[in-house]
Amino acid sequence: MMNVGIIGAGRIGKVHGESIMRYVKGATVKAIADPFMNDETKAWANGLGIAEVYTDYHKILEDKDIEAVLICSSTDTHSAISLEAIAAGKYIFCEKPIDHDVFKILEVKKALEKAGVKYQVGFNRRFDHNFKGARAAVEAGKIGTLDVLKICSRDPGAPPVEYVKVSGGIFLDMTIHDFDMVRFMSGDEVDEVFAYGAVRVDPAIGEAGDIDTAVISMKLQSGAIAVIDNSREASYGYDQRVEAFGRKGQVAVSNDTESTAVISDADGVHAEKPLYFFLQRYMQAYVDEVSEFIDCIVNDKEVTVGIDCGLQSVLIGLAAKRSLAENRPVKIAEIASEYGL
Amino acid sequence: MMNVGIIGAGRIGKVHGESIMRYVKGATVKAIADPFMNDETKAWANGLGIAEVYTDYHKILEDKDIEAVLICSSTDTHSAISLEAIAAGKYIFCEKPIDHDVFKILEVKKALEKAGVKYQVGFNRRFDHNFKGARAAVEAGKIGTLDVLKICSRDPGAPPVEYVKVSGGIFLDMTIHDFDMVRFMSGDEVDEVFAYGAVRVDPAIGEAGDIDTAVISMKLQSGAIAVIDNSREASYGYDQRVEAFGRKGQVAVSNDTESTAVISDADGVHAEKPLYFFLQRYMQAYVDEVSEFIDCIVNDKEVTVGIDCGLQSVLIGLAAKRSLAENRPVKIAEIASEYGL
Amino acid sequence: MMNVGIIGAGRIGKVHGESIMRYVKGATVKAIADPFMNDETKAWANGLGIAEVYTDYHKILEDKDIEAVLICSSTDTHSAISLEAIAAGKYIFCEKPIDHDVFKILEVKKALEKAGVKYQVGFNRRFDHNFKGARAAVEAGKIGTLDVLKICSRDPGAPPVEYVKVSGGIFLDMTIHDFDMVRFMSGDEVDEVFAYGAVRVDPAIGEAGDIDTAVISMKLQSGAIAVIDNSREASYGYDQRVEAFGRKGQVAVSNDTESTAVISDADGVHAEKPLYFFLQRYMQAYVDEVSEFIDCIVNDKEVTVGIDCGLQSVLIGLAAKRSLAENRPVKIAEIASEYGL
Amino acid sequence: MMNVGIIGAGRIGKVHGESIMRYVKGATVKAIADPFMNDETKAWANGLGIAEVYTDYHKILEDKDIEAVLICSSTDTHSAISLEAIAAGKYIFCEKPIDHDVFKILEVKKALEKAGVKYQVGFNRRFDHNFKGARAAVEAGKIGTLDVLKICSRDPGAPPVEYVKVSGGIFLDMTIHDFDMVRFMSGDEVDEVFAYGAVRVDPAIGEAGDIDTAVISMKLQSGAIAVIDNSREASYGYDQRVEAFGRKGQVAVSNDTESTAVISDADGVHAEKPLYFFLQRYMQAYVDEVSEFIDCIVNDKEVTVGIDCGLQSVLIGLAAKRSLAENRPVKIAEIASEYGL
Repeated sequence: MMNVGIIGAGRIGKVHGESIMRYVKGATVKAIADPFMNDETKAWANGLGIAEVYTDYHKILEDKDIEAVLICSSTDTHSAISLEAIAAGKYIFCEKPIDHDVFKILEVKKALEKAGVKYQVGFNRRFDHNFKGARAAVEAGKIGTLDVLKICSRDPGAPPVEYVKVSGGIFLDMTIHDFDMVRFMSGDEVDEVFAYGAVRVDPAIGEAGDIDTAVISMKLQSGAIAVIDNSREASYGYDQRVEAFGRKGQVAVSNDTESTAVISDADGVHAEKPLYFFLQRYMQAYVDEVSEFIDCIVNDKEVTVGIDCGLQSVLIGLAAKRSLAENRPVKIAEIASEYGL
Repeated sequence: MMNVGIIGAGRIGKVHGESIMRYVKGATVKAIADPFMNDETKAWANGLGIAEVYTDYHKILEDKDIEAVLICSSTDTHSAISLEAIAAGKYIFCEKPIDHDVFKILEVKKALEKAGVKYQVGFNRRFDHNFKGARAAVEAGKIGTLDVLKICSRDPGAPPVEYVKVSGGIFLDMTIHDFDMVRFMSGDEVDEVFAYGAVRVDPAIGEAGDIDTAVISMKLQSGAIAVIDNSREASYGYDQRVEAFGRKGQVAVSNDTESTAVISDADGVHAEKPLYFFLQRYMQAYVDEVSEFIDCIVNDKEVTVGIDCGLQSVLIGLAAKRSLAENRPVKIAEIASEYGL
Repeated sequence: MMNVGIIGAGRIGKVHGESIMRYVKGATVKAIADPFMNDETKAWANGLGIAEVYTDYHKILEDKDIEAVLICSSTDTHSAISLEAIAAGKYIFCEKPIDHDVFKILEVKKALEKAGVKYQVGFNRRFDHNFKGARAAVEAGKIGTLDVLKICSRDPGAPPVEYVKVSGGIFLDMTIHDFDMVRFMSGDEVDEVFAYGAVRVDPAIGEAGDIDTAVISMKLQSGAIAVIDNSREASYGYDQRVEAFGRKGQVAVSNDTESTAVISDADGVHAEKPLYFFLQRYMQAYVDEVSEFIDCIVNDKEVTVGIDCGLQSVLIGLAAKRSLAENRPVKIAEIASEYGL
Repeated sequence: MMNVGIIGAGRIGKVHGESIMRYVKGATVKAIADPFMNDETKAWANGLGIAEVYTDYHKILEDKDIEAVLICSSTDTHSAISLEAIAAGKYIFCEKPIDHDVFKILEVKKALEKAGVKYQVGFNRRFDHNFKGARAAVEAGKIGTLDVLKICSRDPGAPPVEYVKVSGGIFLDMTIHDFDMVRFMSGDEVDEVFAYGAVRVDPAIGEAGDIDTAVISMKLQSGAIAVIDNSREASYGYDQRVEAFGRKGQVAVSNDTESTAVISDADGVHAEKPLYFFLQRYMQAYVDEVSEFIDCIVNDKEVTVGIDCGLQSVLIGLAAKRSLAENRPVKIAEIASEYGL
């Protein structure tokens, strides 16, 4: 039974705490730390059987019985805690994004190369049963050479404007998942990005300097073309779909629903909306990504979603940001070169 | 945290053990008993954190710290152990069917009436998200008055003939779930049954005096008509669907799949088969039925799937059996009256 | 160009007139006759280019330039006109049912055997693109040996009670199409029938001695089981589906819609209702059945939907009627033997 | 009955000839002309009842009994014949595109303004039942304000390279339909275009200076974003879909199939491919567009798909062409200004 420590007891920290204690075989949460630790969180931890609760995450890093840590703190602390955790010899699972600043990601990367510890980034969608099904079809050659990849990704509701202001912008906050999905689904790297954006959901988002609606097209290194469309608010819930089209065919995945019930009446034929939010849609994916992380440690396998996934998605996000700002296609190499890559 | 004991560590006992230890809030398995307890089962129990492992289930009945028992032993022992458990003052969750012999079910019923303990029967399908979705639509009046109820229930593969011989026949072994589903979906009672049966899957099943394919039509007390079709073997897996048709509309539920991936190629458009077996399709239903059982105890609610559900489904099964044997419609009242009901 | 005469200018006569003049290659309607011929119908005929319009259908039978006639008059005249048309040496397309009286059908059959002319019965659903698709899958062996055949057939609205009174009852009026569909889909004959019926749509239908809701189960000669469910009124329109299940798989066909538009909104995911009535759903089938009839004449092929299809479906209908009346399974042979068959 | 003349008896000319003679009420084809008129085409015209067959289309323009002409000749002759037909006082239905040269379209436009005759462009997809269904939902406000419009348009097979060379390139030959669809679905005008293209289907297309795969994103004047993805070859047939997403919801339309048959077997669940080619998918649309054209003449209504639709789609196509060539977003106004617009 591997002892795990969770750093950060916000929404995503609690998701992992609950999923590990309930569903992840071979791992248990020994401790959880949060600077704003309160009674409610303590009661929650207690109910799950998490013995130790701290305000200072260093207690976790210092605990020799804890082999792995999950970094679920606020984004601006990810890279610094990553470096400390590497120094403390822990295996690390870090929520996305690692940082908005590429230099900081590169620091973590350098430290990892020296330390040789396993480091997984929390791109949970790669573990979603639907996207895995689509990727399996692509890998099995069912669609032949990939030509066009389309990703639709819409949230059920826009975040508060206060969140938007510190989010790094839609491309680094929301689309970053889709950029990673492009890489996952295609097994390819992005060469160039062109982004259109609009403020359609909430004018306050525009006033905060961000957009809430976007269509981002991309050239991949293989010559295939990818396109993502985003909205911060779909009235019908969380819409997460992928279509991959190639020489031999197409694979498409759609959303999950609470039940398959279809009602036919005088007004039409009615099915259920998609599961409303990411916690419902991706609950099993959260379990599976941490299970794989634990398995990689126990059986000394290489993680499939490593630091480079975290790095590349940020580079693409920065290219998209510049594309939108300057209304021109931007090569990933242009961004990368500014960081000596 | 309520202590639960499981009597019987076969396939279904293990399903409940695992689901309680992992997913059911507020309950833990303190002990499990099986006359054929072996090292493998002990290791399994140990891995889940089930402390006590017995060959004699009386150890469980005698344990004052165990409030509730799950009877997961072989069908022929259900009623006898039920009576003992009632006498021991336990809350009881009993797998279906309670017994093939109506008199024995009635004995349990009488004992329950005296003891006043809670007793739930394991009709897990009532807790399936799809069937719950359909039932919710019916209850909400979405289809108006129910006119025709259709249930399709097919297993992915026929059981071994040795099992068939002691199963009580397809109606008491397999269709019994569908008879309960008729009652659940309609909120009504069956008045009369007419059954057609055939041996299409395996001649050995016919030689054993049973059938493997059936269409059973029923008149309900409200005047609505229900029809079930069964097969012991569907090449494409576990097929479990319901359609309820009424004055205002229809609600239909279909199967679950591993993913929503749809592949279009030169041969056609291909989706996935239904989840292959009941453990996959109904895993969450197993969690939910026991969660409700625990909730009924803790919050002193009445169980929704009680002894009468167990009794009625067996009466309908016996009527279907006689209908098939005598090629005539058989009233449930005809069977019931033979048991003084 | 073959000259065709239509006897009867009611709804179905007009359907055929329009479809032949517009869509059927190699045939033209030279004349149409109806005892209640009026100005509106004359204008309609004129608009289509149908030159001759009569009140007396004998004018059509006497016209040597007319090779084929379509009998679209009221059901009670079908057999008598059939006999006259046979005597006049015409090829005959007769709407269903040929007659409610088996003896009269047998008279037609005898006359046909002597005359050797081609005689097709108007079971248009065999020509529906969906049902043809399902039958093609069965014939191609895609589902293996047929085990269970299910037909759902619901009208969008009940006919007026005056119509019901002279309709011969639901089994001879409505279900007769489904009985023929059982024979078409299975390529098999019905051995025995058991029918449940109910009055759910309109009490006046019950007062007229008929039912409006039915579930009819059947044993086929191969041992397969079939089941039909009927309603005179589905709130969501014309519901016509088939499922055929066999050792190797299942084929299912569903309804057509006006468009494939699917709307997702805050209330759910909404698709269109089935095409509302038989003229919309089966328009192409009407064209195709007459096209095949013409082709059988021109190229001297045997018709696929001959007098025996008309006869068998009526025998099954009478068996269903008796089953309902006497609440017992009825063999087709029991009915047949009463007619010396 | 309005007399119509068809100029050009190639594939599309024959489609219109057949559809008018069979299905379009109130119109008949009096004459058809083609410089390469041959015996086969004469026999085809004869079979349909088209009386006059010419090599010189001026015979049609000179015929005072012919009120309307359909210009179905090769693209490079559309504008010149349009001008002659306007001069001859005919109503004109012109196949798309009117011309690749904007100046020539503008000449036609000027002539039309003077002459005041009705002129319809053959954007048949606007008459497709599915796209009409989607547009109806948008117009009815079902999705609220439009934010993102997605069009997927793939042909079942690439044309021969000889055709590609004179086609004007994929954007003017194939995507032009989709550009019109953007305008139709949105009721809006395109402001700016950015195109990615690739050669994935056939290297010979690349050698001919064209592409066979494209993703074109667009800003609309309202601020909404549209994106089209094209392929010259989808292994599974003709793929024509639209999704419109707005503040209140989404409407999506998919393809038609030959039948709704779905086969479930040990390999999966299999539905049919889309109808394979445009003649199957859009046959009814061809009937409906000409029916509307005739109706506009007879009842003096304004055509809904006029010269401006033809003009705008070419401007967008030219903008897309330049965007691809120069790898930058191109405003429609930039193109328009070069033509004094």
